[in-house]
Amino acid sequence: MSASSRTIDLAVIPGDGIGQEVVAQGLKVLSAVLPQDVKLETKEYDFGARRYHATGETLTDADLENLKRHDAILLGAIGDPSVPSGVLERGFLLKLRFAFDHHVNLRPSKLLPGIATPLAGQPEIDFVVVREGTEGPYTGNGGTIRKGTAHEVATEVSVNTAFGVERVVRDAFARAQARPRKKLALIHKNNVLTFAGHLWTNVFNKVAEEYPEVTTEYMHVDAATIYLVTQPERFDVIVTDNLFGDIITDLAAAVSGGIGVAASGNINPGREYPSMFEPVHGSAPDIAGQGKADPTATVLSVALMLRHLGHEAEAARIEDAVSADLAARAGQPARTTDEIGDALAARVSG
Amino acid sequence: MSASSRTIDLAVIPGDGIGQEVVAQGLKVLSAVLPQDVKLETKEYDFGARRYHATGETLTDADLENLKRHDAILLGAIGDPSVPSGVLERGFLLKLRFAFDHHVNLRPSKLLPGIATPLAGQPEIDFVVVREGTEGPYTGNGGTIRKGTAHEVATEVSVNTAFGVERVVRDAFARAQARPRKKLALIHKNNVLTFAGHLWTNVFNKVAEEYPEVTTEYMHVDAATIYLVTQPERFDVIVTDNLFGDIITDLAAAVSGGIGVAASGNINPGREYPSMFEPVHGSAPDIAGQGKADPTATVLSVALMLRHLGHEAEAARIEDAVSADLAARAGQPARTTDEIGDALAARVSG
Ligand SMILES: CC(C)[C@H](C(=O)O)[C@@H](O)C(=O)O
Ligand SMILES: CC(C)[C@H](C(=O)O)[C@@H](O)C(=O)O
Repeated sequence: MSASSRTIDLAVIPGDGIGQEVVAQGLKVLSAVLPQDVKLETKEYDFGARRYHATGETLTDADLENLKRHDAILLGAIGDPSVPSGVLERGFLLKLRFAFDHHVNLRPSKLLPGIATPLAGQPEIDFVVVREGTEGPYTGNGGTIRKGTAHEVATEVSVNTAFGVERVVRDAFARAQARPRKKLALIHKNNVLTFAGHLWTNVFNKVAEEYPEVTTEYMHVDAATIYLVTQPERFDVIVTDNLFGDIITDLAAAVSGGIGVAASGNINPGREYPSMFEPVHGSAPDIAGQGKADPTATVLSVALMLRHLGHEAEAARIEDAVSADLAARAGQPARTTDEIGDALAARVSG
Repeated sequence: MSASSRTIDLAVIPGDGIGQEVVAQGLKVLSAVLPQDVKLETKEYDFGARRYHATGETLTDADLENLKRHDAILLGAIGDPSVPSGVLERGFLLKLRFAFDHHVNLRPSKLLPGIATPLAGQPEIDFVVVREGTEGPYTGNGGTIRKGTAHEVATEVSVNTAFGVERVVRDAFARAQARPRKKLALIHKNNVLTFAGHLWTNVFNKVAEEYPEVTTEYMHVDAATIYLVTQPERFDVIVTDNLFGDIITDLAAAVSGGIGVAASGNINPGREYPSMFEPVHGSAPDIAGQGKADPTATVLSVALMLRHLGHEAEAARIEDAVSADLAARAGQPARTTDEIGDALAARVSG
């Protein structure tokens, strides 16, 4: 655990759709939880569809320079149907992850009290996925020839390096070692993607020797989707590549209470760059501006951020408040985004 | 529907583990369902772990020549922990799919009566996944440099061609058009894998113009995993790439009754080469030889094979028999592999 800072200088990116609404609640709870002697400074940045349409920009070098000065970034959601698929994803979200070397994409899945899973029975679910964030099929390598013709060929290149794999695998082992069950599963598809698969498997097995207390297993990604719905209680920590991590964390969110409560951190563990925290859900333009969005995932992302910045006690207080709030929901009428934020703020300051 | 043949010349590959046991039941039911005037000829081939250990061979050119002469191939399962990961997958399973141009990998998901899904509630599930079988990240393109060192780089190249995408998309549209609900979903990740994603999306939209009655939608693969557990009833036909199809069909099998009943066909629609039919499950060495394996997935794969060969009535009779058998299972003691095969054979000949 790193030393906690007495100031938090936060870049805030509300973004598109419900991003605006949920981020406001995240900040409300953050202000409420921080002790008097920790100063919170925030600066809001305009990214996403609006700025893209107005200026054609998604994320400039100057933007990166500005963002770099902050301690952390809180993001709501980026994306709108008015922007062609891929433009904001590659031009903003992924560009930022790569520029700030967010190689640990942390996504906890915990079935909290009072939350219904779509699974029959109510299995105990409490695991965390450590998804690699800067390699794999996400690098943008590849291309297209003879575009739009009957002879078009399009390639996507998954790039995997020993350096990139080892650092995320080490991070995952350290997390597994620190948890009571001390279990770590590597998820890949090493029987088909044999080049990348062997690299991942070899590095994983090598690092495992340094962690004799951690129980390890290997699982193909297709089999993992089965276990996630039939035996989710089996998982403790999972480490996996960028694309497999993308896929299984959405599934994990679905089985452990929905993307309304799924938090994530795009982390640069060495703190050379600010890490970014965001709910797993998207901008949900269909319900934007109606006060219907559940800000819980954003609030839980704030907790991940506090933990990363060394404010463990405050992170735990937020998580406890969320658990209590969810448990109290049963049978109650639906609340607005603002009301949920107020309730959580009251609980953490209480 | 193509004309049905009066002889079926079948290559049988029992393979490893439970493959032997389940294939025997598949053949039993096949013999029972065929009318007197259809002659069944079978030839058994030895592939898998045993042959690999004895000879070092997985699938030779001579093997391919022999297999090519048959009308179809029935496979049990290939794979054993004694063989390094990838050797039999790339050396046999994928080699055969590529050599015989099995570009349509057909995987129906239907929640049959009496079958429990791990999902709360019992949603109606009845969809079919058309998975591309000869392109994408499965081509074996890629490589490794500086293997085993701290500077290793491993790549995997997903190869997508307009030719390859269009033929499988066309197959899926034709299947959607023939079904009552006439719905087709394209699943990809076109916001990140923009080169391949745009090719898939453009081809899909172009072919859609020829099928005005088919309702289409596009879904990212991560979002699709959520819908598969929260709204599986929403799907009718799905078309997707080789890797995404691998992942979501295991998830689909899990939500629609488990891989004990999941059938698949590796199809060459033009019949230039024999198509291959196999259960989605693997060789399950842990329960092999104990009579515990459920042969239902293999029997349903035989039904897919009969439909492909033009024997629609017999295919339907097998499917009805399976439905009736599953419905009768509730509360009954577990039966052996052989007993289930006998029961199904009795039903189809009755
Ligand atoms: C929006 C997209 C680029 C992103 C991803 O694929 O990583 C999202 O799905 C996520 O999981 O954060
Ligand atoms: C065994 C493996 C090569 C295969 C695949 O990935 O296609 C299997 O998972 C399947 O789905 O048939």
